[in-house]
Amino acid sequence: MTAPSILRGVFAPTLTPLKEDLSPDADRWIAHCKRLLDDGCHGLVPFGTTSEANSFGVEERMDMLEMLVDAGVSPGRLMPGTGLCALPETVRLTSHAVELGCAGVLMLPPFYYKDVSDEGLFCSIAEVIERVGDERLRIYLYHIPPIAQVGYSIGLIERLVSAYPDVVVGIKDSSGDWNNLHNILTNFPGFATFTGSERFLLQTLRLGGAGTITAMANVVPRTLRQLYDNWESENAQALQADVDRFREALAGYSPIPALKTIVAFRQSDPGWRTVRPPLVEFDDEQSQDVLEKCGLCGES
Amino acid sequence: MTAPSILRGVFAPTLTPLKEDLSPDADRWIAHCKRLLDDGCHGLVPFGTTSEANSFGVEERMDMLEMLVDAGVSPGRLMPGTGLCALPETVRLTSHAVELGCAGVLMLPPFYYKDVSDEGLFCSIAEVIERVGDERLRIYLYHIPPIAQVGYSIGLIERLVSAYPDVVVGIKDSSGDWNNLHNILTNFPGFATFTGSERFLLQTLRLGGAGTITAMANVVPRTLRQLYDNWESENAQALQADVDRFREALAGYSPIPALKTIVAFRQSDPGWRTVRPPLVEFDDEQSQDVLEKCGLCGES
Repeated sequence: MTAPSILRGVFAPTLTPLKEDLSPDADRWIAHCKRLLDDGCHGLVPFGTTSEANSFGVEERMDMLEMLVDAGVSPGRLMPGTGLCALPETVRLTSHAVELGCAGVLMLPPFYYKDVSDEGLFCSIAEVIERVGDERLRIYLYHIPPIAQVGYSIGLIERLVSAYPDVVVGIKDSSGDWNNLHNILTNFPGFATFTGSERFLLQTLRLGGAGTITAMANVVPRTLRQLYDNWESENAQALQADVDRFREALAGYSPIPALKTIVAFRQSDPGWRTVRPPLVEFDDEQSQDVLEKCGLCGES
Repeated sequence: MTAPSILRGVFAPTLTPLKEDLSPDADRWIAHCKRLLDDGCHGLVPFGTTSEANSFGVEERMDMLEMLVDAGVSPGRLMPGTGLCALPETVRLTSHAVELGCAGVLMLPPFYYKDVSDEGLFCSIAEVIERVGDERLRIYLYHIPPIAQVGYSIGLIERLVSAYPDVVVGIKDSSGDWNNLHNILTNFPGFATFTGSERFLLQTLRLGGAGTITAMANVVPRTLRQLYDNWESENAQALQADVDRFREALAGYSPIPALKTIVAFRQSDPGWRTVRPPLVEFDDEQSQDVLEKCGLCGES
């Protein structure tokens, strides 16, 4: 097998539709994944934060990923989330993704203990790499301190890249902090840096970044792709403004139920609204409200 | 089978010793558990925060618990931690504990998503109860906002107790906030309320609380038991002061490596110091330092 290429572009952390019994609905999910690729996404991140990944068990996640590949989605376009709190389970999910041929994995640090040291986090990731022990492994670090509370500092990234230059190849920065993203882009020019907020997509590309992995790609993939393909054009700023409009409309809403509501509306499939606890599905009034804010009521 | 009794007393969230390969060491662990019971603990909480629970996989946790019961520790004295982020895994661990005959389980709320609503957390716990579907299930809520960041508000406790009065029977409050603990003790007089900090043990018992589940029980079980048994005596305040002395000595140290260092010293077994990443084992200098602070160097 050849080494996977470094990923670039617009990636969707795919929403996970559920059946009434709260189990993941593979059929609706695979259809959604294929639609996103048809609509311009370069690739997918099954089991990111937007996917409610941490609300699913290890077996559920592995089963779903296998079904997606079996359904014909190229693993070369997949970067599944595989970072958990428990070392052996992170190793299990990561090995499974590599064996399926996934181009990369998106790795949360272990996130239960807070105020852990960079040394402890370095050892965590190093243990995963050594235990997986597969030269095809490509890790994209997942930095999302607003939710995980534990993240990758610049010093830690440096140490990981120095120790494992062929394995630790990129990052998704969901800090929401331009200064942090800017620091990563300028300190690690060869790194595949994805912005977790599409607000910074144009700036990220201008500084040589790899693209974006954003929840919004579930609902505005074409708009994001337009910007990605034309970031060097005169139009770029206007395309960024198109992208921004959607996030502004969603401001103040819990993002996962809001995005599921939008997909439910477009697919005329109210079951798409279901979320797994501890998230809470939007009621009819909230759904109507978010659709109006997004200017979607007259869309279909 | 008869219904389990409501638990009371001094409980140790047992430290988990590791082998060199970072796997849990069942032999050392069982010996430690039995020692704690011999030394005065009323019961044990395998796989609490102090146990590095969330750094272990579901299989590791189930295997260890079975070995402990097989080794002769009565499940009637056990309240294993079973709350994870992923609903099916919380159900699996909880069912397993109930089937083993454990008197209760200590349940973290799902802790990945932050700022979740009480409604979402209620649904999470309700789903677990319905899916386990066993009338022997007794849940002790685990409120530890400094680490989990997600916790049980007074309103949520009220709702859970109203909906499941025979199942949701107690709480461990590790908020470190006396006002919160006081609110729980006064709002829910029939509830088995354990303080997560032994600093509040005397006050908790005076207000009718159930006892304490504290990391310190791994190292000063007798002192804690003394206070528990004599809280109504003239001596009680002095006994509380004895208890407090140990925590004060440990102030500023990362608690899990510090406690493992103390057990390693007492057992003349340096391997006891090992922790699983993201935690970091104390080096010789830190170890020496913590032992001196605790006045332990001349102990054995």
